Amino acid sequence: MSQLLTKKNTVSIFDSTLRDGAQGEGISFSVSDKLHVLEALDNFGVGYVEAGNPFSNPKDLEFFKKAKQLTLRTAKLVAFGSTRKKGVKAADDANLQSLLSAETGYAAVFGKCWDLHATEILGVPLSENLDMIHSSVEFLKNGGVNVFFDAEHFFDGYKKNSAYALEALSAAADAGAAALVLCDTNGGCFPFEIAEITAEVVRRFPNIEVGIHCHNDCGCAAANSVAAVRAGATQVQGTFIGIGERTGNANLSVIIPNLQLKLGYSCVAPEKMPSLTETAHAVAECANAALPGNMPYVGKSAFAHKAGMHADGVAKNSGSFEHLPPESVGNNRNFLLSEVAGRTSVLQKITDVIKSAGISGEITKSSPIVGRIADKLKQLEFKGYQFEAADASFKLMVLRELGEFKRKFEVQDFKIVTVMDTKLKRAREEGRTDADMSTSTAMVKVKVGGEFDVTAAEGDGPVNAMDKALRKALGRFFGGGGDRNDKPNDKRNISDMRLTDYKVRIIDSGANTAAVTRVLIESTDGHSDWTTVGVSDDIISASMMALIDSIDYFLL
Amino acid sequence: MSQLLTKKNTVSIFDSTLRDGAQGEGISFSVSDKLHVLEALDNFGVGYVEAGNPFSNPKDLEFFKKAKQLTLRTAKLVAFGSTRKKGVKAADDANLQSLLSAETGYAAVFGKCWDLHATEILGVPLSENLDMIHSSVEFLKNGGVNVFFDAEHFFDGYKKNSAYALEALSAAADAGAAALVLCDTNGGCFPFEIAEITAEVVRRFPNIEVGIHCHNDCGCAAANSVAAVRAGATQVQGTFIGIGERTGNANLSVIIPNLQLKLGYSCVAPEKMPSLTETAHAVAECANAALPGNMPYVGKSAFAHKAGMHADGVAKNSGSFEHLPPESVGNNRNFLLSEVAGRTSVLQKITDVIKSAGISGEITKSSPIVGRIADKLKQLEFKGYQFEAADASFKLMVLRELGEFKRKFEVQDFKIVTVMDTKLKRAREEGRTDADMSTSTAMVKVKVGGEFDVTAAEGDGPVNAMDKALRKALGRFFGGGGDRNDKPNDKRNISDMRLTDYKVRIIDSGANTAAVTRVLIESTDGHSDWTTVGVSDDIISASMMALIDSIDYFLL
Repeated sequence: MSQLLTKKNTVSIFDSTLRDGAQGEGISFSVSDKLHVLEALDNFGVGYVEAGNPFSNPKDLEFFKKAKQLTLRTAKLVAFGSTRKKGVKAADDANLQSLLSAETGYAAVFGKCWDLHATEILGVPLSENLDMIHSSVEFLKNGGVNVFFDAEHFFDGYKKNSAYALEALSAAADAGAAALVLCDTNGGCFPFEIAEITAEVVRRFPNIEVGIHCHNDCGCAAANSVAAVRAGATQVQGTFIGIGERTGNANLSVIIPNLQLKLGYSCVAPEKMPSLTETAHAVAECANAALPGNMPYVGKSAFAHKAGMHADGVAKNSGSFEHLPPESVGNNRNFLLSEVAGRTSVLQKITDVIKSAGISGEITKSSPIVGRIADKLKQLEFKGYQFEAADASFKLMVLRELGEFKRKFEVQDFKIVTVMDTKLKRAREEGRTDADMSTSTAMVKVKVGGEFDVTAAEGDGPVNAMDKALRKALGRFFGGGGDRNDKPNDKRNISDMRLTDYKVRIIDSGANTAAVTRVLIESTDGHSDWTTVGVSDDIISASMMALIDSIDYFLL
Repeated sequence: MSQLLTKKNTVSIFDSTLRDGAQGEGISFSVSDKLHVLEALDNFGVGYVEAGNPFSNPKDLEFFKKAKQLTLRTAKLVAFGSTRKKGVKAADDANLQSLLSAETGYAAVFGKCWDLHATEILGVPLSENLDMIHSSVEFLKNGGVNVFFDAEHFFDGYKKNSAYALEALSAAADAGAAALVLCDTNGGCFPFEIAEITAEVVRRFPNIEVGIHCHNDCGCAAANSVAAVRAGATQVQGTFIGIGERTGNANLSVIIPNLQLKLGYSCVAPEKMPSLTETAHAVAECANAALPGNMPYVGKSAFAHKAGMHADGVAKNSGSFEHLPPESVGNNRNFLLSEVAGRTSVLQKITDVIKSAGISGEITKSSPIVGRIADKLKQLEFKGYQFEAADASFKLMVLRELGEFKRKFEVQDFKIVTVMDTKLKRAREEGRTDADMSTSTAMVKVKVGGEFDVTAAEGDGPVNAMDKALRKALGRFFGGGGDRNDKPNDKRNISDMRLTDYKVRIIDSGANTAAVTRVLIESTDGHSDWTTVGVSDDIISASMMALIDSIDYFLL
């Protein structure tokens, strides 16, 4: 451990979100998603971005065309392909030709290093496989391409037949590969194996860069990547948020801070580290993948303290329950509200609300309001509410308890009628199962001050109709809508506000508990976002609660 | 590596899902949830189950009372608490007394091993902290309790002041602790550190069991636990699916197969290993936590092959792209359907459908139907469908394409009216924000063969009302419901079927795409479960599609 923080080695980061990541279950990128990911990774300072083969399909072709028009700061675009087919000359291999015409300057080429794969999967003699590696790397190298040789199944191959696995590396090295990237393709290795085998390769190939490419099938991909770097590897391949085939690739958003902030390696410019969390969220958004809350460093729970004792400890000395300051990776400390939360967490949250609402007065851990809100919280959570996500509803609850909330409008009555649309029904009968079948109309009566307004709106479904009708009725008073508009000029119009996400879960659907529906609504006014929650045994009531909370919050 | 699979050491598994796991963000257990988790863990063969302090709150008291009435096969129930408070005698400490009265026979007691924590967080002299450890362990030991000493922050403490950290262990050992459990409380350590420090402790305390308790803040908790076991630890603490404070605890469902199936240790009875996946799902269900699809070993994607080349390889030799057979942990191999899926995956899925539907005839990779379904799949996924989860809807789609599906009923018309309930509105005005506000009534007209039926039902929200009305109308023809019942006796009644989960997501809500709603409905008939999907720009239509698919599937 004495060597910690004294090494100043540079490690280059190779991101494969757009290639290996796209092989994750449920992942699919549009061309514009891919361009956004590339820009986010380049902004963060990643060294290489692998993005598929430009000539494998029209989508990738379009992506590479557009990507070349971008001015990238740090990221080099890398095309990806395999060694030549058996029985074909490298120069005649369509895949290799397409890698050359990609004109990216960099290509990652994978080849077999496990004897079983050469003979059983490819069906070629061992010597032919070595020539496939050598001739492919040589062809690209002669064409001016820097070739990273992805040594597929290297560790498994080494364990079964180390001599052959090393011969495969030599074939690539002799042909002029720029790096030998050791792959734990099946993800079955442990750090002690990775460390030992990587050290041996680094010893045998002292003049060529060695890289590491891990998968997470034993839950050890991050540890394995770190172990390889400590054994001498200087390129780490992975995907930024760990998505990929099966259990995923090594997670770069975990490995980069491990190496750079904890073990003294240099991966990206130091001033970029605080944008780690933001970058991970941007990549997750493009991948339409939920970023797990418990993801190390970047997840929303990564620095969330729930146990009362932990919250107390962190309040006294943040290092006592945090292995590193959340701000160093651009994340936030968070005290969770729940039945196991101590008064420290509740106090912290209430103080935040009071400060942001501009209310004067001092609140301490022993103020009665703290106990009252903690009790209310337990009671509501028991009913199915969850305030961890619904910051806006929590704020309203605190203001109500403080007697600082004045309701600006009331819903006096509503009716929603949903009818089957027979024209569209016919479309469905014709086999167009995606055609709409219904139209919803909502009627609503609101009271603002002493005045009433009644209006109606059609929508895509009952909640959408209700949302439209409600904002239309309120628009008369708060701007931007209504059958007529009584509102004096103001910068914030209710018409600027819209619903951006809507999540519904049935909870407690176990045998002995009545099922309730929890609705989370995310809204935006173009400047900021907020989330509200509603719980009821019916979806419309739960949605109405979340909707009314959202408008209440907007009007604060 | 030569030692692999030759060691036959026994490692005991200590699960803290009900204690440390409950500190995860969004996790909350009812008493019945806790009992279900305990039973699932005991069935699987876990050695110890830590479940909180029976006297800390009424919920835990009720749990311990009920848990004692269960006949557990392998699991020992463990009560959890801290060392005595400062300035109080152990015998007078309420927490220690309650651990004794729990009568579990086993207690886990945590104490400070990092000098900073003693002085700054507890505010006691270093010597007083050592006495707090010694006297607490001694008091419980004298009361007949086996005490596991949780050495909180042991690794961080050791790195700062190894002499003091070891003194803290000695205080517990001298007082008769049954095990010294080394905790990486902040989760900031790497395997090489854990291995080195654990080996040193094992060397210094040769006559007492050493345990390991890791957190995942560096993404290394599984690797760290394995490293500690290889260094001599024989008890592994963690939570079964990795839930816990911040980034979670070491994931036992990953560590157990790592140790037992890959490294030759013995953790549970060998015949229990194939129920690993089922156990993880049961625990996740009780925790109301989604089990991440990419979780090693037990996630639904853990053995899912998407890239055409991987699917081909596995079809030739499963070991080529799998580090271990999925059936050894009770999981399944899965070929994913998507735009990057090869024909092997589509063929595999179609073959499964044909086999289960009892249709004769041979289909090969080059059959036109394979290409047609692959195209249809791409087209529907583009519209927002996702068949990876909705197995039943996929099956219906294949049968429709094969011309093997005969629609058994048609929805001719429907209307849903949702009105505000003024009695309940009053409740809301009184501040009872959780009261229901609306009543929904659905009217539906169905056609079965040449006959029609019209009926109506009230429900909790429009979808629930529609579901009830539809099954009521169809009950006349397919058993168990209806205004009158024409159905001849049959074992399967439509009234046996019910909706168990209902998930709604707004997808593609990006700037340039029209937002659509995707509904996933999970149904059961008490024997099996199935999931269907509907996509539309309105929630009612999307729900209707998923609902109709679900009934179609049931009637197959």
